[in-house]
Amino acid sequence: MEIIDGNKIAAAIIAELKATVATFPGRRPCIALIRVGDDPASVSYVKKKQANAAEIGIESRLILPPVTITPAELFALVDQLNADAGVDGILVQSPLPKGIDEVAVFRRIAAHKDVDGFHTMNLGKLAQEDETGFVACTPAGIMELLRRSGVTLAGKHVVVLGRSLIVGKPAALLAVQRKAWANATVTLCHSQTANLPALTRQADILIAAIGKAEFVTADMVKPGAVVIDVGVNRVPDATKKSGYRLTGDVHFPTVSPLCAKITPVPGGVGPMTVAMLMQNTVKAYRQNLGIA
Amino acid sequence: MEIIDGNKIAAAIIAELKATVATFPGRRPCIALIRVGDDPASVSYVKKKQANAAEIGIESRLILPPVTITPAELFALVDQLNADAGVDGILVQSPLPKGIDEVAVFRRIAAHKDVDGFHTMNLGKLAQEDETGFVACTPAGIMELLRRSGVTLAGKHVVVLGRSLIVGKPAALLAVQRKAWANATVTLCHSQTANLPALTRQADILIAAIGKAEFVTADMVKPGAVVIDVGVNRVPDATKKSGYRLTGDVHFPTVSPLCAKITPVPGGVGPMTVAMLMQNTVKAYRQNLGIA
Repeated sequence: MEIIDGNKIAAAIIAELKATVATFPGRRPCIALIRVGDDPASVSYVKKKQANAAEIGIESRLILPPVTITPAELFALVDQLNADAGVDGILVQSPLPKGIDEVAVFRRIAAHKDVDGFHTMNLGKLAQEDETGFVACTPAGIMELLRRSGVTLAGKHVVVLGRSLIVGKPAALLAVQRKAWANATVTLCHSQTANLPALTRQADILIAAIGKAEFVTADMVKPGAVVIDVGVNRVPDATKKSGYRLTGDVHFPTVSPLCAKITPVPGGVGPMTVAMLMQNTVKAYRQNLGIA
Repeated sequence: MEIIDGNKIAAAIIAELKATVATFPGRRPCIALIRVGDDPASVSYVKKKQANAAEIGIESRLILPPVTITPAELFALVDQLNADAGVDGILVQSPLPKGIDEVAVFRRIAAHKDVDGFHTMNLGKLAQEDETGFVACTPAGIMELLRRSGVTLAGKHVVVLGRSLIVGKPAALLAVQRKAWANATVTLCHSQTANLPALTRQADILIAAIGKAEFVTADMVKPGAVVIDVGVNRVPDATKKSGYRLTGDVHFPTVSPLCAKITPVPGGVGPMTVAMLMQNTVKAYRQNLGIA
């Protein structure tokens, strides 16, 4: 059994991007980060994104509207950044305050600056296998983890557990593409699936993104499978100072001995998400400036 | 075993649409049909679309550019129809002459007039389960056939054979939606799938859209399954005047006795595709005029 080290792979990608950005003449790539309000998780995520950008040599502009911002004001802010030729990528940190329609905000971002890959147009391009689009960072990170761990997809059965718009569906659409690195057979399972273990046990590669702590148990995994754990769940734990511990959607202690490879939580998919955001920002910069 | 009568179901939908359209005050819904050149299959398809429109009370405008039309001229034609407030839906009949990028033409059509559902934005909306979008007519027709045949999807295993952008992928995205009529578990198989019969035999509902004559044989189907045959293949047949017979992707003589329900070819999915185009046109009319 091999543990896939997401931190190490993400660091390698960051280093590669840094070397690439160093070769760019003229201005640096630039990402605008909009964080509405002070949700502690959002503060921490955005900090991480800024730190990665700084490391690579990507300029980041942090914009901090108050939680009282109206949808119209947020749209106007996005419009302004859309029109700003010095901004390559725009990210609006989720979650937004209640009363603001996230999908509408994501759709307001110019598709060619949508480095989060949440725009309707970019989802459509993913279905069309059009590589000018931006793929959402978590599923893109999963594919990159697999590739850099030497896991091929062609002809394999990928079972995706969870049909979210941000992970499950785009991961399925990526794995099934007519690309040499893809070409997998894909099953999309979810909370309404009957006889789930019989399906997940067929997976050569199991992607767990159902958002339930330690949901995937040993009886649900085929020996020799590759398991990618996308879950980030807080479980109460009195032995911890914080009062909780982080766990994935997979019961690691019993599942990991069965696997050929598995990602840990934390340190698996998580760090890849930020690395892919940086990769998308560099891609947006290239496209915006017409650099091959 | 019950044969699902696509002609009968499509006729019922056409009659319902006719009754609905009769209630509309003011102008009729209008679809513009662009057919480039004289490909015999295209001539026949477009005729069928016009006849259905006429039956319902939908105005159709037939536009027949020569095969020598340039991409720029075709774009200009589409732009003109996009701007025409009297046109609710625009359909560009596939295939287009070589040298014209179909995806680019489909993307040029205003998304709110894209009654074929091929626009990138409408594919994205399908993934987002956003019902303001238009769903491609063949997969929409498949779901309607199932619904009107009393086949429920929730918790069932739908296996889709074929990953095309026009049938396989949108059918998978529809069946897996968080809708009361959907909620299926979905497997997407294709030409690169290993051990295909073991997967198709798990299907409660098998959708065959692989474009290979009589590819699905009895050993690939679970007894009691519902089989939807999307294939339209010409097989040489000396006993026929035309020299060929039409066949689906399913070997009907041996598979049909096993099934709970099955669609024939012709007379199954085919007629539904045109009915769904008409339904999309009426939807576009309502949206364009702001009629609930």
